[in-house]
Amino acid sequence: MSSPADAAPAGAVRQGSLREINLALLLGRIAAAPRPPSRAELATDTGLTRATVSAVVDDLIGGGLVTEVDPTPRTGAGRPARGLLLASRGPAGLGLEINVDYLAVCVLDLAGEVRHRTVHRADLRPASPAETVALAAELAQRARADAAAQGLTLAGAALAVPGLVAADGVVRLAPNLGWREVDVPVLLAAHPPLTDSVPGLPALVVDNEANLAALGELHAGEPGATDFLYVSGEVGIGAGIVLDGTLYRGARGFSGEIGHLPVHPEGHPCRCGGRGCLETYAGQEAILAAAGLAGTDVAGDAARLARLAAGGDPATLAALGGAGTALGVAVAGVVNLLDLDTVVLGGTYAPLARWLSPAVTAEISRRVLTAAWHPVTVRPTVLGADAAAIGAAGSVVRRVIARPAAWLAGAADPGTRQGLSSAAAGGLYSAPDRRG
Amino acid sequence: MSSPADAAPAGAVRQGSLREINLALLLGRIAAAPRPPSRAELATDTGLTRATVSAVVDDLIGGGLVTEVDPTPRTGAGRPARGLLLASRGPAGLGLEINVDYLAVCVLDLAGEVRHRTVHRADLRPASPAETVALAAELAQRARADAAAQGLTLAGAALAVPGLVAADGVVRLAPNLGWREVDVPVLLAAHPPLTDSVPGLPALVVDNEANLAALGELHAGEPGATDFLYVSGEVGIGAGIVLDGTLYRGARGFSGEIGHLPVHPEGHPCRCGGRGCLETYAGQEAILAAAGLAGTDVAGDAARLARLAAGGDPATLAALGGAGTALGVAVAGVVNLLDLDTVVLGGTYAPLARWLSPAVTAEISRRVLTAAWHPVTVRPTVLGADAAAIGAAGSVVRRVIARPAAWLAGAADPGTRQGLSSAAAGGLYSAPDRRG
Repeated sequence: MSSPADAAPAGAVRQGSLREINLALLLGRIAAAPRPPSRAELATDTGLTRATVSAVVDDLIGGGLVTEVDPTPRTGAGRPARGLLLASRGPAGLGLEINVDYLAVCVLDLAGEVRHRTVHRADLRPASPAETVALAAELAQRARADAAAQGLTLAGAALAVPGLVAADGVVRLAPNLGWREVDVPVLLAAHPPLTDSVPGLPALVVDNEANLAALGELHAGEPGATDFLYVSGEVGIGAGIVLDGTLYRGARGFSGEIGHLPVHPEGHPCRCGGRGCLETYAGQEAILAAAGLAGTDVAGDAARLARLAAGGDPATLAALGGAGTALGVAVAGVVNLLDLDTVVLGGTYAPLARWLSPAVTAEISRRVLTAAWHPVTVRPTVLGADAAAIGAAGSVVRRVIARPAAWLAGAADPGTRQGLSSAAAGGLYSAPDRRG
Repeated sequence: MSSPADAAPAGAVRQGSLREINLALLLGRIAAAPRPPSRAELATDTGLTRATVSAVVDDLIGGGLVTEVDPTPRTGAGRPARGLLLASRGPAGLGLEINVDYLAVCVLDLAGEVRHRTVHRADLRPASPAETVALAAELAQRARADAAAQGLTLAGAALAVPGLVAADGVVRLAPNLGWREVDVPVLLAAHPPLTDSVPGLPALVVDNEANLAALGELHAGEPGATDFLYVSGEVGIGAGIVLDGTLYRGARGFSGEIGHLPVHPEGHPCRCGGRGCLETYAGQEAILAAAGLAGTDVAGDAARLARLAAGGDPATLAALGGAGTALGVAVAGVVNLLDLDTVVLGGTYAPLARWLSPAVTAEISRRVLTAAWHPVTVRPTVLGADAAAIGAAGSVVRRVIARPAAWLAGAADPGTRQGLSSAAAGGLYSAPDRRG
């Protein structure tokens, strides 16, 4: 959608743009600084005058985006300056994930701290899309109330689903959930608003879960990784591809379907219609079946597998070894193709990484041409099993930091805020940014 | 390497930069125009004054980059203006390809016309790297003489090899040629210079053949394709990945090793050390073996296979069908992963595309999740079997067009030009541009 400035007359846009640029510039510096910078340091860093910095910082403080803290005492001459840091009250992001065997909800504040986190385990395949969305909306309401009690206002929401999401928020296909052409924004519009939506900021984004988890890993995971494959193992297997520090979405936004890389081309039939897809060898159900646990309740099974493996259960260890080999075959192909230096194991693969990684690494060593010169790191995500919800909430927070003027306009005139129900109906739904 | 301006004092850089920017801007417009633009049209298009346009255009004409042509008569009032187009004499690019069973050399002029083209067929596996490079250097000398006879000066060279090329031009590994750690710039330095190298323009770039062929397809192939997989079938199988109109090179420049995507993980052993790689099912030798032609001279075998297939030979048709299926399994995986809308068949796959494409398309339809909504186009390259050499020469020409000031400085003072032998010894070797 357009920012409010787009609709203003040309002269006003220029004046407004300059203020918007300075607000975003200084808020971005404050967000990225390793310790709270002073106004004087910001002026030196940016080349803006001290008067401009002070005026802009006052706006950021007035709007609840930044707080000023007393300095820690230090040695040396001169009165130490007060430092600026992101507000721990004020705007926050709501992240939601609907997956096959759980719903996750979290709230992140501007500084990226997790302020609320719920994971609700249930096999959601028997539920209709409307029932599942209703459950997500209910959990979101509790998160919103908890956020409000902490002085936080939800500035937007992002929802992760394990499937192909079109630019209008319609889930084209989520085969493991049994969803096809599910219009999530319309379903959500039947419920009370999830957030205090702000004109100029998207009220709701729907995106693929592996994409959002990869964004979470990029921004909140181990620092320094800019080219990696994030593999999200659930009942299905998705991937987020980060190239040059940017999430690669593909020609039409449908990249990352690693679960349907064929590892045994005439092997097991797959729900997608193909045969021998990775998912049928290394998806959660395949692992459970190989471990002799088929048919048990799928929710919570990663923890059960981890307990059995830690206890040395031979069938579980063999199942995880086989899944790791299949995953390694597919991942080695991806690394040969894309020349990535890091593979991050996420979703249920994170708690199982200890038993999956050796086989994955073995297949990479065996099959990747450049592995002899450039070892490939295989490691679990540091974000845990609900990485996609955290990545989703983080994407909301990064948008507030990138466009503080939109938040400030809403803060000055709360009457302009709209609830999500009217927002969705009125077209406030936004597609994910093309570049990350 | 640095451009000459980088070494000049700061004040001079600014003045020089402005001229460089205008030279590049106007030459770029002339190169991209659908018909020869007039000076007046260039002024309107760019917002530069007519005086500036005329001064810059005079420089471009004086340096042999642009020529002025009489207009075709047209109806309407006023004296028709003279049009500007890229010179058909002057700087040109030398493209070379060393592959397993042929050497290709070509010269492209500024307008992208092929002015010289040689394909020398021979099985190069028994030859040492030094012998093969010597043969390439000899063919390049003939091309240079032919170019000179046409009034063309070679402004640089690019060499395509079927392997992993490090940033310093060393071929780390070209398994099907049997090359490992071959320092191509050093080997070439033992021969007379290939080109009139120009300070500020790279004398030599060494790059992966599929990457250069993909760049050729992007710039000289069918217009409009911006997200595609270029698959180059030779004895090995390489791929060039174009995303958003840019060649994707990977974290360390080694992307595109599609030949080692496993299609039957415990299948045929591969030269790379893995098993069941695509190459062992759809590489040229695998096709020949399946067609009952194993052990025949590999050079020229694509033409033989095409003749046999056109004549209905059942063994050849079965071999091509099997190779197409294996290729389709791998390509479907790549499309699922990267969400590309076009697959271009190059190398020996181009003349065989008629028999390979049906199986490739069938596997895509069967395995790609989004194929039902977004059909994937599978087509042969329009550039023919020496697409990599054409892409290589085109990359040289595009650099001249992007940096005309470097060429003009050399044209004004031919004494500053260096031959490749001294250039390579003196560090004039350049890595491929990171972004295409």
